[in-house]
Amino acid sequence: MDVKEVLFMNKGDGENSYAQNSPFTQRVIELSKPVLESAVQSLFGEEVIWNKVFNVADLGCASNASTFSVMSSVIENVQKKCVELNAPIPEFQLYLNDLPGNDFNTLFKGLSSFADRYNDASLFMMGAPGSFYGRLFPTNSLQLVHSSYGVHWLSKVPKLTDEAGLPLINKGKIFISKTSPVAVKEAYLRQFEEDFSLFLKSRSQEMVPNGRLVLVFNGRPSADFTRDYCYPIPWESLSEAIAAMVSEGLIQEEKLDSFNVPVYAPSQKELKGIVSKEGSFELEQLETFPINFGDKNLSDKLFKNMRSVTESMISHQFGEEILDKLYDKFTQISIEDMATNEEYKVLSFLVVLRRKATDH
Amino acid sequence: MDVKEVLFMNKGDGENSYAQNSPFTQRVIELSKPVLESAVQSLFGEEVIWNKVFNVADLGCASNASTFSVMSSVIENVQKKCVELNAPIPEFQLYLNDLPGNDFNTLFKGLSSFADRYNDASLFMMGAPGSFYGRLFPTNSLQLVHSSYGVHWLSKVPKLTDEAGLPLINKGKIFISKTSPVAVKEAYLRQFEEDFSLFLKSRSQEMVPNGRLVLVFNGRPSADFTRDYCYPIPWESLSEAIAAMVSEGLIQEEKLDSFNVPVYAPSQKELKGIVSKEGSFELEQLETFPINFGDKNLSDKLFKNMRSVTESMISHQFGEEILDKLYDKFTQISIEDMATNEEYKVLSFLVVLRRKATDH
Repeated sequence: MDVKEVLFMNKGDGENSYAQNSPFTQRVIELSKPVLESAVQSLFGEEVIWNKVFNVADLGCASNASTFSVMSSVIENVQKKCVELNAPIPEFQLYLNDLPGNDFNTLFKGLSSFADRYNDASLFMMGAPGSFYGRLFPTNSLQLVHSSYGVHWLSKVPKLTDEAGLPLINKGKIFISKTSPVAVKEAYLRQFEEDFSLFLKSRSQEMVPNGRLVLVFNGRPSADFTRDYCYPIPWESLSEAIAAMVSEGLIQEEKLDSFNVPVYAPSQKELKGIVSKEGSFELEQLETFPINFGDKNLSDKLFKNMRSVTESMISHQFGEEILDKLYDKFTQISIEDMATNEEYKVLSFLVVLRRKATDH
Repeated sequence: MDVKEVLFMNKGDGENSYAQNSPFTQRVIELSKPVLESAVQSLFGEEVIWNKVFNVADLGCASNASTFSVMSSVIENVQKKCVELNAPIPEFQLYLNDLPGNDFNTLFKGLSSFADRYNDASLFMMGAPGSFYGRLFPTNSLQLVHSSYGVHWLSKVPKLTDEAGLPLINKGKIFISKTSPVAVKEAYLRQFEEDFSLFLKSRSQEMVPNGRLVLVFNGRPSADFTRDYCYPIPWESLSEAIAAMVSEGLIQEEKLDSFNVPVYAPSQKELKGIVSKEGSFELEQLETFPINFGDKNLSDKLFKNMRSVTESMISHQFGEEILDKLYDKFTQISIEDMATNEEYKVLSFLVVLRRKATDH
């Protein structure tokens, strides 16, 4: 599976689209706003802001309105602070990034009503298609980078091999599970280390000294690898739903065994280790915030969101014809599972990193 | 008709898509390449190039591969010249602009194979959605701007009024025609003057001093307004095809009378007058090149191209259900018309403008 080609949020603005079904991402962005605002304020203290153009990137923006909410927050905070300081307001160049398979058409449709709200400002909106596991922007060009619910997606499915380097099967599972071999867990961690280091290195080249990188993503509450309950997608339930369809003869067993999802939530310790080892950034802030996901108000929309996020990969592996049945089963298993699990929470990390002023 | 919403080349890569049907645009780009190359060379003479980032924009890029052909030409020429001069090769930031309704998804799909051809270069590709009749980029940020077959499209349909300011009907026609009132012709010219001046003003703010603006667009061979034979779309034939469907009762007469296409080809004199009056640019080069369009090899693809360019407007005004019949009729009328017209040529202007070093 080529993640770059296969991973994208559902397109358009129809019933199963991501644009219509991302209440969770929107909630996360609301929760992280105060931290984003304070990161913007910090830029003023260090005079990072005093360029004629303020360049901001939102990485992994998908196609819903959340990215506009982030950009609003940045613009309004810069404007407010400039007025306070009696300083000229810079022009804004706002880069919206996602993989080339993202639905940029739907994203760009929302642009004009966004820009209309700021017709007193000089706003230049750009789409920046490409993988953030690599360079996206010119050297030394960005003051602020934001990414919400992006970096827990890996650049590829980890290569699963045992200690002797032989191919390993994650039998009947699609992710790190209680029954997965230890080598599976280690392969996921290694892939995350490699990806996140490359992410930091790429950003360090693109960002100005003292620029701020604000990241929100899934984090793990403890050292335990198999805690399924830190993701907004219950991967264990999805795995069970696929396995049930294997039992019914609707999906081939080999197709299940050869499918693993490219996602990983690090622990705090793992995260700090990678940041420190890569060396370009200083960790300014690390907050964890759990969002209760298992309450009785689980809406239809939430399950549609899970579908809009996972459908591109699932249909690529198993075909389109099984989608409706699979997602019905998945919803049913998840609801039962959540009902018996009091502590069903999604855990997010909110991290502010400062680009060091000198290279290491 | 809101041109921003309604004008776009046909999406996707199917049978009637613009991506699959733009041999004419590609031919024009091939013809204009030597001039583009010499514009790039000029930048070296005036040291415009000696920035760490070389910022280039292609305005009105649509969704076919032509824009990559333009960008290739720029990259390869800069690389070659830098090697000659033993100078460091800059990073490239390439902005692909079109209206937000353009099919950026199809455009971005082609990006990775393009970028793969230049994996020794630092290329950063951006989509810049918005109207080029207004600001798109930060102040003083672009060294080179290119636009092929864009600026003959007006920002809106000219407001048709008579000398007393009363509404005027362009009876049975959709463009400047031999039977159109003089006021129609004047309204089109006024709209072009307004739009092209705003285009130049916006670019002058975005471009660095001595930056080059390379434009290719439809031009008129003489003072005669009604020369239909300078456009790749024979508007007169399209108008006749619609009128024929009015006669058959398939289209309401009022719908025809209230429809005019937002396109205009200036004469050399008109063009020079606007550039001089706006004042930010010096005209370095103006070439005219006719492409013979009326030969016997008119392919099916050419008519599909005409459809892919005009369909968004036509279906917005007359509905989707009439499209197939209308375009069959249009093709038939055009073929007959071209067969009897020896000199059926499309005329293009190729213009190089230099951003003056000082403001006027």
